[in-house]
Amino acid sequence: MSRFWSPLVHTLTPYVPGEQPKLTNLIKLNTNESPYGPSPRALQAMRDAADDTMRLYPDPEAAALRAALAKRVGLTPDCVFVGNGSDEVLAHAFQALFGHGDPLLFPDVTYSFYTVYCGLYGLPYRQVPLTPDMRIQVEDYTGPCSGVVVANPNAPTGIALGLDDIKRLLEMHPDRVVLVDEAYVDFGADSAVTLVADYPNLLVVQTFSKSRALAGLRVGFAFGQPDLIEALVRVKDSFNSYPLDRIAQAGATAAVEDEEWFQKSVQKVIASRTALASGLQALGFEVLPSQANFVYIHHADRDAAELAANLRERAIIVRHLRGARTASWLRITVGTDQQCDKLLSALRDILRRNT
Amino acid sequence: MSRFWSPLVHTLTPYVPGEQPKLTNLIKLNTNESPYGPSPRALQAMRDAADDTMRLYPDPEAAALRAALAKRVGLTPDCVFVGNGSDEVLAHAFQALFGHGDPLLFPDVTYSFYTVYCGLYGLPYRQVPLTPDMRIQVEDYTGPCSGVVVANPNAPTGIALGLDDIKRLLEMHPDRVVLVDEAYVDFGADSAVTLVADYPNLLVVQTFSKSRALAGLRVGFAFGQPDLIEALVRVKDSFNSYPLDRIAQAGATAAVEDEEWFQKSVQKVIASRTALASGLQALGFEVLPSQANFVYIHHADRDAAELAANLRERAIIVRHLRGARTASWLRITVGTDQQCDKLLSALRDILRRNT
Repeated sequence: MSRFWSPLVHTLTPYVPGEQPKLTNLIKLNTNESPYGPSPRALQAMRDAADDTMRLYPDPEAAALRAALAKRVGLTPDCVFVGNGSDEVLAHAFQALFGHGDPLLFPDVTYSFYTVYCGLYGLPYRQVPLTPDMRIQVEDYTGPCSGVVVANPNAPTGIALGLDDIKRLLEMHPDRVVLVDEAYVDFGADSAVTLVADYPNLLVVQTFSKSRALAGLRVGFAFGQPDLIEALVRVKDSFNSYPLDRIAQAGATAAVEDEEWFQKSVQKVIASRTALASGLQALGFEVLPSQANFVYIHHADRDAAELAANLRERAIIVRHLRGARTASWLRITVGTDQQCDKLLSALRDILRRNT
Repeated sequence: MSRFWSPLVHTLTPYVPGEQPKLTNLIKLNTNESPYGPSPRALQAMRDAADDTMRLYPDPEAAALRAALAKRVGLTPDCVFVGNGSDEVLAHAFQALFGHGDPLLFPDVTYSFYTVYCGLYGLPYRQVPLTPDMRIQVEDYTGPCSGVVVANPNAPTGIALGLDDIKRLLEMHPDRVVLVDEAYVDFGADSAVTLVADYPNLLVVQTFSKSRALAGLRVGFAFGQPDLIEALVRVKDSFNSYPLDRIAQAGATAAVEDEEWFQKSVQKVIASRTALASGLQALGFEVLPSQANFVYIHHADRDAAELAANLRERAIIVRHLRGARTASWLRITVGTDQQCDKLLSALRDILRRNT
């Protein structure tokens, strides 16, 4: 509490990111990073960009990166916005598109940054409960609202909506923006980017942090019709003209262009996820059907926080989220097959000892 | 105008950054970048950081960079905040520290992003006129306010305040934050960082974009007592947990540690500025006494916008700002001696032809 702080600051409940431990030799399955490195072409582009031109400002419009992203999905660059991680893109979108007075709608169990943005921008919101089996039921997202946000696949559940459900949301609220947060979409869900041309109220947000293995580079992006993109640009240019540095623009552009590396990495994660889910079920866990690079699991007889602590003692970090509906679950990133095996044997050992 | 935009978006007048031309072979003296490259040690650190670990999130607290910055000025790391360029640091500071209802005070001629931030966060402000000779007179910054912002040296004038004047501002408003924007301080002004320990209401903001020749890396920072830094952290963690990517953290840390390169670059710019100012005066320009890496000049008989256009035809870009008090002035970055010579001969030629 300080006399210097704006009143707003006293009210904020900041987001708490998953731990980024400085220890090595940990198996880090807590923040859904890729177990495989980024495209070698992207790394080379970053190294090449680290030259004398770093003395110059980057392109404030990130034209090359936006062109590469647009080309890949068959849109024009004026349908693409880029920012410093999808967190920054989401923040701008909340401020730019959801300030209509009515509550913003999103699930009660989802990415916990959404409530934080609402606090930062003074946006009322209503958290719509997932069904008892942890699914989003789009029929529940009715009534006057300032917009709708769904993570697809949802986090931490990993469960995906089909495009028919996304269309239904868009048609239920033709005068409001439906933001589909597709941080994890590449691991098996259908992207709503194919609907952008038909729905002026659709904003699709994606990231380089997961399927492109570039969490360390901080690049996120959004697809939408130019009207929505312009709103984001206006906020961005009132906040920070150059959110993406030269190396980030170069690396991300090269990453988009290396489709082969991307597909291979994603397929490996999907294959490991299938094996991991079976292994966990064999140990007695309930495993939600995941289309993401993590699994969400629950054990009828075991305390989830305790399991997480036991794993930590064995140098494996997973994510346990407090909260009424999440406290008995663990979210575990799909690592390499070797990491998954170590996780399974650690869990087997823990379950045996505590019997 | 769009039914999807938050009402705020319709009211924004975004900042317009100086042109970042894609043409080469231009002499670019419009955005105050360093004419010398960044520290070779910084470039090497960036290249080294572009490895497999890019798949992992960066340190959200940027501990190594904050420690290096703190050490250099004799403060503790909890007195240091870092962000994606000083523009982001300033944005957070405006939102975190100036929302007290009364107007924020800053000069009428200064960095034009300040009014933009006020628009973004709904902050009332009062622009205090510079004296007729374009100086900040601290006695003018009286009355109830939500805070005071001064750029020191001021931009676009280049004129610096002494620390006695900064102290006077701090003591005039003990319950309000005085933000000193020191983007250009290393080129000859005295930094208020030496006052941080004594004044709980002082926030000093600096950047890697000018004296450290890393405009392309997007790193800015602030010094203040932990209470003020905490306010910035709370806003940052409600907006984007990881604004500095791994490469930016590595490069900026190495740049801070290369004091020798830093001092050499700065001294070269200062020497060139002296020569450039004499050359411009010899051509009949009024040149304000600059402590920055640019000069602010005015010619009694020539239209500034026309001069800028004439220079542009000769492949030299300078900055002309519209506005009642700035329209007859040009802001010109101090380039290499060779660039300064080319600028002077181009101006000589232009003045001769149009006589």
